[in-house]
Amino acid sequence: MPEFELIARIQARAATRDDVVLGIGDDAALLRVPPGHWLAVATDTLNADVHFPAGTAAADIGWKALAVNLSDLAAMGARPAWATLSLSLPHADGDWLEGFLDGFLALAERHGVALVGGDTTRGPLSICATVHGLVAVDQALRRDGARAGDDIWVSGTLGDAAAALAQWRAGGAAEPALRARLDRPTPRIELGLALPGIAHAAIDLSDGLLADLGHVCVASRVGAEIELQALPASPALAARFDASARAGLQACGGDDYELCFTAPASRRDAIASLARAQPQALARIGRVVDGDGVRALHPDGSQWLPARAGYAHFDPTG
Amino acid sequence: MPEFELIARIQARAATRDDVVLGIGDDAALLRVPPGHWLAVATDTLNADVHFPAGTAAADIGWKALAVNLSDLAAMGARPAWATLSLSLPHADGDWLEGFLDGFLALAERHGVALVGGDTTRGPLSICATVHGLVAVDQALRRDGARAGDDIWVSGTLGDAAAALAQWRAGGAAEPALRARLDRPTPRIELGLALPGIAHAAIDLSDGLLADLGHVCVASRVGAEIELQALPASPALAARFDASARAGLQACGGDDYELCFTAPASRRDAIASLARAQPQALARIGRVVDGDGVRALHPDGSQWLPARAGYAHFDPTG
Repeated sequence: MPEFELIARIQARAATRDDVVLGIGDDAALLRVPPGHWLAVATDTLNADVHFPAGTAAADIGWKALAVNLSDLAAMGARPAWATLSLSLPHADGDWLEGFLDGFLALAERHGVALVGGDTTRGPLSICATVHGLVAVDQALRRDGARAGDDIWVSGTLGDAAAALAQWRAGGAAEPALRARLDRPTPRIELGLALPGIAHAAIDLSDGLLADLGHVCVASRVGAEIELQALPASPALAARFDASARAGLQACGGDDYELCFTAPASRRDAIASLARAQPQALARIGRVVDGDGVRALHPDGSQWLPARAGYAHFDPTG
Repeated sequence: MPEFELIARIQARAATRDDVVLGIGDDAALLRVPPGHWLAVATDTLNADVHFPAGTAAADIGWKALAVNLSDLAAMGARPAWATLSLSLPHADGDWLEGFLDGFLALAERHGVALVGGDTTRGPLSICATVHGLVAVDQALRRDGARAGDDIWVSGTLGDAAAALAQWRAGGAAEPALRARLDRPTPRIELGLALPGIAHAAIDLSDGLLADLGHVCVASRVGAEIELQALPASPALAARFDASARAGLQACGGDDYELCFTAPASRRDAIASLARAQPQALARIGRVVDGDGVRALHPDGSQWLPARAGYAHFDPTG
């Protein structure tokens, strides 16, 4: 299949929005940013065998390629608007492309995202998506606003995706409930939109709680203490992994795509209301402290030391 | 070198702009789009051995990764503002990264582009850049405005990059002047900014003149006739390739990154003034006609038939 036909297939399926002046099919997309808003832009690439196991269904790859990007917008409190997609494919497989679009566009539709441009090239399987969101001026959630005394919260549950990956790497089939979290992460868009005015700082969890919370601490020039037993675990995780194994998966595993945020204790009621109004739970897992670094604590107050502090590409211990 | 150090190196060298609220270092960049402007967005990926020969200098790869994207903004008449960069690297090589940034940031500085975000991942060498430009409302150059009777123009010279690639594929060293055009294309930003009000339609030449002009014809529902002997050739191309070989390289070779535009005959004087005021020449190479398709004509009016209509990824003849 020639490149132009691949692009025509994508164009035929992509939805549009009123603020798209010109979408797929010219040299660039033309887009209207409404007055009183900042543009939020994030980009993330998924490579075969690095970001997803070989043999992952095309629809799951499509979903995840957009989800990991939308998760970044969620962490900024931005409302998603537009995406571009750069696809490198070893060969032009129309069935694979349709499957990929099934996943990508299902998630795009859920959040009203228009696919407005991109390119297709020959190369090892790799997907680079760039997403654009809108956030009211001065309302963005940033990493650098955490203050000593803040509570630390996370959405949903932690460690499921890392557990699925661990099962897969051990040569077995991953538990379906865990695998679903690895393949189809849920970007916490509605939560991100509700947090401005409540949270002081936010980040999405892609590299692991300790690593990502560490970025917040560096940006905010504070430290953090985490209660290991407060980390929220799914029933599937709790059933398959003991407390010791869970600790590593939940504190250090990547690919959760939950939000971690800090907020003053005075906003606990507002956060409880938010948790009741939204599909995912919110768990208070620790506090921001003076100093630097992130420490995870056992119930007796002693420090838990991870074997490995988070997923880092190129980390020689990775 | 860990991923965080790669990102820190990039962040340390990236310039900023007044309209960047938040650049590299948070979940997303935050950007201000001025009132009265549309946002123009384009994305293009370069893969090793597909878009550049193995062994291409890192600085040349960096330059080209941004240049091919800025060329898309030029074709829209947009002024470049911001870029994101997604780098997949087989291993974390600090020297390679510094070289890459030398090229990428030199071109970014020339056009006032701020690098505002991106990611680095492990994988086969691949560079995905997304660029953002600004164009006054209703002033964008599009592909769909060509009208029968328009002149067809191209900037600069055609065929140099394809000639360099042909020499390299034949096993020899490419002529330096030709190789420079393959490795360091010049996005015609200033030309694009001058064309609104003059041109009816524009496109950048990445896949080859006949293929790209064909996109304009389809979008505008017109045909085109090109005079083969009017295609502008560089001295290096003319010295190394005879007229027959030149025809294929100039009409069908890719990677020129010149602009092709159509304009009414009444604007020939304005275009001549433009050519005198800017570094690149502008050549009138044909006309827009009723009908469809692009025909290249010999001096006697007979049709020249290419062996191959342009570079298309996945084209089985490619």
